[in-house]
Amino acid sequence: MRLSRYFLPVLKETPSEAQIVSHRLMLRAGMIKQSAAGIYSWLPLGFKVLRKIENIVHEEQMRAGHIPMQMPTLQSADLWKESGRYDAYGEEMLRITDRHGRDMLYTPTAEELITDIFRSNVSSYKDLPLTMYQIQWKFRDEIRPRFGVMRGREFYMKDGYNFDLSKEDALHAYNRHLVSYLRTYERMGLQAIPMRADGGPIGGDYTHEFLVLAETGESEVFYDSAVTDLSFGDREIDYDSVEQCQGVLEEFTTKYARTDETHDEALFGAVPEERRRTARGIEVGQIFYFGTKYSDALGAQVQTAEGEKVSVHMGSHGIGVSRLLGAIIEASHDDNGIIWPEGVTPFHAGIVNLKQGDAEADAACEALEKALEAAGLEPLYDDRKERAGGKFATMDLIGLPWRITVGPRGLKNGVVELTSRRTGESEELAPEAAVAKLIEIYADHRVTGL
Amino acid sequence: MRLSRYFLPVLKETPSEAQIVSHRLMLRAGMIKQSAAGIYSWLPLGFKVLRKIENIVHEEQMRAGHIPMQMPTLQSADLWKESGRYDAYGEEMLRITDRHGRDMLYTPTAEELITDIFRSNVSSYKDLPLTMYQIQWKFRDEIRPRFGVMRGREFYMKDGYNFDLSKEDALHAYNRHLVSYLRTYERMGLQAIPMRADGGPIGGDYTHEFLVLAETGESEVFYDSAVTDLSFGDREIDYDSVEQCQGVLEEFTTKYARTDETHDEALFGAVPEERRRTARGIEVGQIFYFGTKYSDALGAQVQTAEGEKVSVHMGSHGIGVSRLLGAIIEASHDDNGIIWPEGVTPFHAGIVNLKQGDAEADAACEALEKALEAAGLEPLYDDRKERAGGKFATMDLIGLPWRITVGPRGLKNGVVELTSRRTGESEELAPEAAVAKLIEIYADHRVTGL
Repeated sequence: MRLSRYFLPVLKETPSEAQIVSHRLMLRAGMIKQSAAGIYSWLPLGFKVLRKIENIVHEEQMRAGHIPMQMPTLQSADLWKESGRYDAYGEEMLRITDRHGRDMLYTPTAEELITDIFRSNVSSYKDLPLTMYQIQWKFRDEIRPRFGVMRGREFYMKDGYNFDLSKEDALHAYNRHLVSYLRTYERMGLQAIPMRADGGPIGGDYTHEFLVLAETGESEVFYDSAVTDLSFGDREIDYDSVEQCQGVLEEFTTKYARTDETHDEALFGAVPEERRRTARGIEVGQIFYFGTKYSDALGAQVQTAEGEKVSVHMGSHGIGVSRLLGAIIEASHDDNGIIWPEGVTPFHAGIVNLKQGDAEADAACEALEKALEAAGLEPLYDDRKERAGGKFATMDLIGLPWRITVGPRGLKNGVVELTSRRTGESEELAPEAAVAKLIEIYADHRVTGL
Repeated sequence: MRLSRYFLPVLKETPSEAQIVSHRLMLRAGMIKQSAAGIYSWLPLGFKVLRKIENIVHEEQMRAGHIPMQMPTLQSADLWKESGRYDAYGEEMLRITDRHGRDMLYTPTAEELITDIFRSNVSSYKDLPLTMYQIQWKFRDEIRPRFGVMRGREFYMKDGYNFDLSKEDALHAYNRHLVSYLRTYERMGLQAIPMRADGGPIGGDYTHEFLVLAETGESEVFYDSAVTDLSFGDREIDYDSVEQCQGVLEEFTTKYARTDETHDEALFGAVPEERRRTARGIEVGQIFYFGTKYSDALGAQVQTAEGEKVSVHMGSHGIGVSRLLGAIIEASHDDNGIIWPEGVTPFHAGIVNLKQGDAEADAACEALEKALEAAGLEPLYDDRKERAGGKFATMDLIGLPWRITVGPRGLKNGVVELTSRRTGESEELAPEAAVAKLIEIYADHRVTGL
């Protein structure tokens, strides 16, 4: 992409309404624009990252055997009256009346609707286990939306639902989700720690929240510092294996890690003192097993092999897709701007031409652009006639992890400069070597999408 | 994908509420489920096609140089009051009041919001031309929603907006959209004819609708049969070339083709009688040039090279993404079910095991599945213990264009059967040859997505 043809409205001024760094940087980098309180337009750069994150979530959910589908944003209130949540849900549910006077709502979550789809179509244990999920816009009419996309009203979320014959099977689905979430966050360059949490309005005794440690987090968290040494890494896992998934759950949740909602001073006191940590965390996902709460309420039953009718065991599992952009930036930035992890960067590398209009420099930049594109990478080539300082500042602000700087002086020696956004370190190398190095760096960070 | 692990709730009965064939087949094939009047859940098979269509639209828009972004589904009413459309739009606009009593709406289109984004960030002719687009859920509170996803209330739509310095530039953008739309529909196996249309509530004198001829179409259309001989084919086009884009526009719009809104008996009479056709058509897209209507109303101006401030020339351009599924099925089905064009089929081939549980047949099916997946194709393997007749009926209903049938008898002779859904013709060939043939067939139908 040529910057001269892109829409990247970076701001020089720090917007006064933004209280936290991710909100400030997303506005300044031209990623989002507020359209109403807690409602944002995703400008091209922001949308590109949103879509990458969405695609990583899709890939990891499909890898775990979960089936993508999509439910509408607006639902009739009927099912919510049937489950009892229409009245139980407070003012955060946006209630709508259509032209015929029917009660509708903008879905904040979809346990009722997915259970209705299930009960209408599945009647035998033979069709279980089944896990379906969607990534879809949701709405929560927050009284005081703030922190940009971190606590917006209209937000993009992955919500998945498992249907199983027994509690045992449903707990395997729970564990499978935990594993897939660990992989998902790590691919985005995030450490998200599963912490014992509270069921809230979804319900259920088994629930973990995934928290990214950050000073601006909304939750106070208490943990054994040993949990931050854990990483899923590139181990292979068989999602059908009960033992393997259970093993990962135990590894990642046995050590003390809880939000303030479930914090237990006595248990925390048993952690060796030098490993006790109190911090703040940003919630980026949550998994639940809630048994037959919704299947009982909505009559979602299947016939067992013995001919008996039983309510199915269910769980639901969410990832805050749009919120993740804020969380990643909170966890990865410096004074000059965002530092995207390779897995989610909107462009793989920036190309800065120090002397736009110089025939040799222009040709070298175009050759680099073509070579990177031929390798399936997406460069952002700053081809504007601006001063080098301004170009560097823009690249730093928008946070591409790698920058190639091309100028007449270097080209005389046959080199360009490759700079890491994270470390600030540069090295001079031949253009072909820079391309080869980027291909190698990104070999483990390919997103195929749906 | 193994059918035993998929969620494909096919219906034996024809649903009584469905009046047209695409609606019936989408319900029967387990692609959609109605959740409220005119509002559907996209079950896995339907969602898969929806996503493929979305990805083709993205690919072709990006190829034309248009920039993807995304606006929210809910907007504040303020901008619509500023443009004057808040009152002008009738009851089809879903009006919403949030918890603070603010007027909101579920966006049916986004001229106001994109113009606001533009005016807030662009002030110089140097940033033009600019075309941005989104694919997003929209809502139109139809009084009598019907025909399934063809005339739903919540629908998925691509809407793009161009901003140009002059009428001349904006007409190039108009032509560029026409070209990209022709390519888009042809990749989906559709012939969509651009017809002179009426501006309606969007406004503008320059507008073409793209219509797919089908008996169930909502519009009456009049055309010179010579337009149906035109095809874009695989010609190369430079989207920056005014001449090339203008040439395509002329080629595809000079011959008489109009909807009833703009039909002119006198002009139609000038078409040689043997080429005059009257038919019905399904609208699958529309392009508009409306000049400075919204930029004047909302004050979207730029400074010219001479320092003068002028309103930008705009157009908007839509493709009915969810509606396209219905249109494709209306155009491509038979008594047994859907016949997907290769470009949008949810799975590339079905594998039917005639004797599930037979070690040799099972192994052959698994080998075929692996070989196709290794080639980047997605097979749907019917591994259920069902009778062959039922398996064939399901494959015919869901419309995969190619089926590989595997049975012990064929395997003894080292062959499987490859059957075309469209022609019903079968040929026996070695499994490796069947895989090779499918790879060749799909070489021109790869969708990469965003």
